[in-house]
Amino acid sequence: MSKEFDVVVIGAGPGGYIAAIRAAQLGLNVACCESNPYDDPKGEPRLGGTCLNVGCIPSKALLASSEEVENVNHHLADHGITVKDVAVDVAKMLKRKDDIVGKMTKGIEFLFRKNKVTLLKGHGKFVGKADGGYQVEIAGKDGAETVKAKQVIIATGSKARHLPSIPVDNVMVCDNEGALKFGEVPKKLGVIGAGVIGLELGSVWRRLGADVTILEALPAFLGAVDAGVAKEAQKLFTKQGLKFELGVKIGNVKADKKGVSLAYTAADGSEKTLECDKLIVSIGRVPNTDKLGLDAVGLAVDERGFIPVDDHCATTVPGIWAIGDVVRGPMLAHKAEDEGVAVAERIAGQKPHIDYNCIPWVIYTSPEIAWVGKTEQQLKAEGRETKAGQFPFMANGRALGMGAADGFVKVIADAKTDEILGVHIIGANASDLIAEAVVAMEFKAASEDIARVCHPHPSLSEVVREAALAVDKRALNM
Amino acid sequence: MSKEFDVVVIGAGPGGYIAAIRAAQLGLNVACCESNPYDDPKGEPRLGGTCLNVGCIPSKALLASSEEVENVNHHLADHGITVKDVAVDVAKMLKRKDDIVGKMTKGIEFLFRKNKVTLLKGHGKFVGKADGGYQVEIAGKDGAETVKAKQVIIATGSKARHLPSIPVDNVMVCDNEGALKFGEVPKKLGVIGAGVIGLELGSVWRRLGADVTILEALPAFLGAVDAGVAKEAQKLFTKQGLKFELGVKIGNVKADKKGVSLAYTAADGSEKTLECDKLIVSIGRVPNTDKLGLDAVGLAVDERGFIPVDDHCATTVPGIWAIGDVVRGPMLAHKAEDEGVAVAERIAGQKPHIDYNCIPWVIYTSPEIAWVGKTEQQLKAEGRETKAGQFPFMANGRALGMGAADGFVKVIADAKTDEILGVHIIGANASDLIAEAVVAMEFKAASEDIARVCHPHPSLSEVVREAALAVDKRALNM
Repeated sequence: MSKEFDVVVIGAGPGGYIAAIRAAQLGLNVACCESNPYDDPKGEPRLGGTCLNVGCIPSKALLASSEEVENVNHHLADHGITVKDVAVDVAKMLKRKDDIVGKMTKGIEFLFRKNKVTLLKGHGKFVGKADGGYQVEIAGKDGAETVKAKQVIIATGSKARHLPSIPVDNVMVCDNEGALKFGEVPKKLGVIGAGVIGLELGSVWRRLGADVTILEALPAFLGAVDAGVAKEAQKLFTKQGLKFELGVKIGNVKADKKGVSLAYTAADGSEKTLECDKLIVSIGRVPNTDKLGLDAVGLAVDERGFIPVDDHCATTVPGIWAIGDVVRGPMLAHKAEDEGVAVAERIAGQKPHIDYNCIPWVIYTSPEIAWVGKTEQQLKAEGRETKAGQFPFMANGRALGMGAADGFVKVIADAKTDEILGVHIIGANASDLIAEAVVAMEFKAASEDIARVCHPHPSLSEVVREAALAVDKRALNM
Repeated sequence: MSKEFDVVVIGAGPGGYIAAIRAAQLGLNVACCESNPYDDPKGEPRLGGTCLNVGCIPSKALLASSEEVENVNHHLADHGITVKDVAVDVAKMLKRKDDIVGKMTKGIEFLFRKNKVTLLKGHGKFVGKADGGYQVEIAGKDGAETVKAKQVIIATGSKARHLPSIPVDNVMVCDNEGALKFGEVPKKLGVIGAGVIGLELGSVWRRLGADVTILEALPAFLGAVDAGVAKEAQKLFTKQGLKFELGVKIGNVKADKKGVSLAYTAADGSEKTLECDKLIVSIGRVPNTDKLGLDAVGLAVDERGFIPVDDHCATTVPGIWAIGDVVRGPMLAHKAEDEGVAVAERIAGQKPHIDYNCIPWVIYTSPEIAWVGKTEQQLKAEGRETKAGQFPFMANGRALGMGAADGFVKVIADAKTDEILGVHIIGANASDLIAEAVVAMEFKAASEDIARVCHPHPSLSEVVREAALAVDKRALNM
């Protein structure tokens, strides 16, 4: 007799494993399947998905390590500290990253055991309907089994988008996976795509000594980011040594063991070639929806491969849900997590709700970029009357003390009601500072509300308050 | 004819200068007087008060610099980075601090000019009443003048409390002023008082190489801090190398050019002597209210030297207000600032309000400690029924990536209504993380509210959310 579950979650990334745990907390009998071993030495499936294994977590570990190198090389002297013979052991740096990832994947295994979530090792795929549910085949290393689920949550995430003209071998030409494990620092590094991943990984290897050129097809830098922030970011990153070419048309690549040669047409129409030791391709991600047997249950994907869902992540087939990178909305781990919690709660009969306008974004460059709500250009396009306030970290004592005076906070509010419509931060610890803005927006706060809330002195969060005061033209320290 | 102002602010510390600027923004004719030159080479009064000149700002600069030293000596190797011949130029480190202070004091002068606040250089003192106001004498280097003010804001701050038996020369035996400018790192440093200042400055010099012993008269470590946080703090600081003796009775001190010898009675009653190269006395602060000519306007201080005020910082004499360290409430710069804003607005006819329960506290050790609202022991003493949730940074991917996994967040909520009553953080960037808790508490949020708000992944702020989830026993990653 096949196993039966209240809920089977396909995929153990941040959306899937959180959905499984939340469903189990609510008393449901839950299984979660996963097949991807990533770099597991034994080829065992590893939990945590792209985010934990080859995305957010390892990149943040390398960003932290490379930031230390940058600091030692360029900023220690400001404090009166001198050192000699700075040496970087890249292998040890990568091992630190791998250890953190290993610790956290083991952590999810522990959480599954603690919450009595059954881990099914293998690729999950619909094979048909069952009495009051669905048949899901789990194909693992040692064969396949079919389990029955009353409800199924699809949380299979996404993979790097590749171009047909640029084959990725993850040695010379790499997506996010290969770019996290270069055995040594490339002298010249090319990056296609000036998005989040390109900027973060470009920054890592630049700090470690690579000469990094980032090519971007779009004419604008960080077009989805508030234009003022994007402009400041481009200025700061260029000053750090990243080279950008925008509005390019990518041509063909030639790669051998010695290097990579990438042809492209520059914005001015000239034909150019970028010679580099390694090439990172970071041009977006595509949903993993092609091997799910969706037709066996009457589901179909849209033209871009996403699974259509309603506001609550319900697909068109009752009892089948989809969350995270396989559905509409930003491809962000915390968006997937929140959808996972919401679907689990909805299955258990609760009525949760996600406000997609209050999902924060972060780019983990230095300084960090974080925002929530709408950008000034979005609001302008909507014809909304707004007022904005901006305050620089340069005028903040804590930022000066930390040697982190770059950037600013910008608060945008409705011109009449003063409701906060967007908060945009480029500066140190932006990923932490944005949290108060999200809380405020969830409470439909006015900019006046943040302006009236006491903020500790000295702290970087004072810059958020001053920007809110600046909306009403009454910043105190500027 | 003497000058006349709508408002004269006595003292240009964080309370006073902010009050002056806010009053000027509201269209009032404002003067602010200051007499303290601190270390100004020309003996000119310097703006910014204790906080900017010899308190928060310079200590944060030295904390940042000394943290760099700690990092180079103890944590770089974790990342695979090695260096040799680490050398610290203390003079350069102190100059960096002085430059930051200098830049910010100049910044306030600029703000005064921009906002048309008249700076009166000299010591301000009441000399009598005037027709519809008060006579304030400003005694400066070049003589005294008397100005007339319709309203006066007393913002003269506080000074270090000294013991009669322990004379402070700020060379061998120092308060906060001398402790910020040791010419070299003392081999053995004694500190009396394990409060905020003792812990911060003790940490600075320990990181730079001093063997630091901190003596505390009270039997409990950080008694005003949530007991769980205080326990964790003592454990971590002890591990870092700070030595604590609690419950001691301080005796006499002998100091000469070679060193300091401090007699004390240990908690077990034994008589001991602490021999050290420098001694810091940080046993609290007393309000600067003794040279203000208060009797000339019919004002009196209480038995501890504070000026009695109502909830809106009005003294018993109409038109005279007092804010910051000279009145009841915590001696915190941001509390003084908020009182300064509120008094200026009240003078201008507005009805501002300060919720003293929503004023955050920060101790800038490593890890930082920050909290808002009440501690568990306070709530217990009040007989309040509560529930609490706690989550460690150790289980957070960003914290692991940063190498900052010490500490936790604790959220305390009302057992029935779930309203957040206190949030207590010991961990990296606690000073920034507390901001969302303050915003939430100002909105009378429930712990469920923070638990439901999307937090970026990976970020330290997720720990705040998980602690809120833990209140309802549904943390996801623990």
